[in-house]
Amino acid sequence: MGRVTERRRVIRIRDGAVSTRPDTLVAEEPLEIRVGGKPLAITMRTPGDDFALAAGFLVSEGVLASADELANIVYCAGATEAGTAAPDEAGSGGGSNSYNVVDVRLADGVPVPDISLERHVYTTSSCGLCGKASLDAVRTTARWALDTSPDSPVRIDPETLSALPDRLRAAQRVFERTGGLHAAALFTADGELLDIREDVGRHNAVDKIVGRALQQGRLPLSSGVLMVSGRASFELAQKAVMAGIPVLAAVSAPSSLAVDLAVETGLTLVGFLRGTSMNVYAGEHRIALDAAAPAS
Amino acid sequence: MGRVTERRRVIRIRDGAVSTRPDTLVAEEPLEIRVGGKPLAITMRTPGDDFALAAGFLVSEGVLASADELANIVYCAGATEAGTAAPDEAGSGGGSNSYNVVDVRLADGVPVPDISLERHVYTTSSCGLCGKASLDAVRTTARWALDTSPDSPVRIDPETLSALPDRLRAAQRVFERTGGLHAAALFTADGELLDIREDVGRHNAVDKIVGRALQQGRLPLSSGVLMVSGRASFELAQKAVMAGIPVLAAVSAPSSLAVDLAVETGLTLVGFLRGTSMNVYAGEHRIALDAAAPAS
Repeated sequence: MGRVTERRRVIRIRDGAVSTRPDTLVAEEPLEIRVGGKPLAITMRTPGDDFALAAGFLVSEGVLASADELANIVYCAGATEAGTAAPDEAGSGGGSNSYNVVDVRLADGVPVPDISLERHVYTTSSCGLCGKASLDAVRTTARWALDTSPDSPVRIDPETLSALPDRLRAAQRVFERTGGLHAAALFTADGELLDIREDVGRHNAVDKIVGRALQQGRLPLSSGVLMVSGRASFELAQKAVMAGIPVLAAVSAPSSLAVDLAVETGLTLVGFLRGTSMNVYAGEHRIALDAAAPAS
Repeated sequence: MGRVTERRRVIRIRDGAVSTRPDTLVAEEPLEIRVGGKPLAITMRTPGDDFALAAGFLVSEGVLASADELANIVYCAGATEAGTAAPDEAGSGGGSNSYNVVDVRLADGVPVPDISLERHVYTTSSCGLCGKASLDAVRTTARWALDTSPDSPVRIDPETLSALPDRLRAAQRVFERTGGLHAAALFTADGELLDIREDVGRHNAVDKIVGRALQQGRLPLSSGVLMVSGRASFELAQKAVMAGIPVLAAVSAPSSLAVDLAVETGLTLVGFLRGTSMNVYAGEHRIALDAAAPAS
């Protein structure tokens, strides 16, 4: 696992008693993502799966949608190079060395993204930038539309959803040692765990899952269920939509804009998923509500 | 409170029973921060205290350090304008309208920050960008050094620290209604609550506190204790240091780089602050450990 965790000395105070001991912390390091040699973004992340993180980030940004649009990804120092479809590259032990700069080389003909800040601001020419503009930006850049027909092929039972938080937690290896990690996991509609990533940033964990899927030619993830620890922000809903994932479930609350995006795109958004309770904020046609008795 | 919360319809499932009801969500909207008319950053935030958020963000970035370096802040549409030192402007009811773009005008002679992405990347000319570079960036841009002498004038009892999480939670008004907000609070070393802000982004909550302090001429916050819900990332430790705050306490785990920054700058970093237990990762000279019995 290398730099996924680090040891530091800590002074513990417990009910007035003081002791000194080593403690295991989650590693946090900056990663610079370049495209064709030009800096595009920097993110504070837990090292590991760096190529997947970069690829997934570019899916979220609308730059990449399939493995053949990606030529390769290299660490800037050139010490490690990965192809686009090596399943083991992004494993927890692979893809990490002492470098914190990756360069993504796009396939011929794939437009290099505009690296200006303006692109990230979406609409600089007008005042009154609003949530609506963010929704528009996702709509215009998404490569796939979620299947919003009432008889969606993806249907998930509330019982299956209820089992996901425990499965997520059980698969979180680093959290147990550090208490300091967010996690994201990809499940089938039957609740089978397909992938899980942990990171200091929840958005990075999602990017790593999406990037691995891209590298393995599995996008869009049109039958996947994405489960995240913590809250469901606009950014996470955006990443789900951009990867073609039809169901996003969170342990905690969603934000208003996450719900708005879910309603607009047909994403199924479940929040406060705890025990046998949950709130469905959008896309309820994918939840097998007939399996649950209506409240009196 | 206006747009701090929004109402949406939700389908609740409780032990198999299904019902539909309105739900209160935390509002999330993008805010574009401009300096002298040029876009510098965009952040997803909970509306309100927008001028304070922009000012605090610029403190964190090393652009601003005192109120007299700030000419004024306006909404881009010009509908609302705030001076630099109006204590009520940033109140929970003020500073918010339908606009999501603010323009910060610096005082004459204050250098306008370089808006290129490179600035945010810190060191693009070299490969091997590392946590060390991030630490260097904070060191070179900080306007104040924390007092690291063994007899620091700021000393806080473990008992006082233990009381902070409950005080933070008690003061979190929006969280109670939505379950979806992070909070940051500024306390004195005696545990007196000076300010609290809630936001979908923890970093925004801290920026709002720091920005209010700047507007009111209270920087550096050299006797303050910053308490945050959740984890302590590098970014939050950086914001504390840039505002001159000597103590950062978090309910949950710190990251490795947050600890490294605290050790290097002399910041007191407390994590896992729960009940009468806590871990002190750095700067223990500000904790009154003599008030706690050594462990046998």
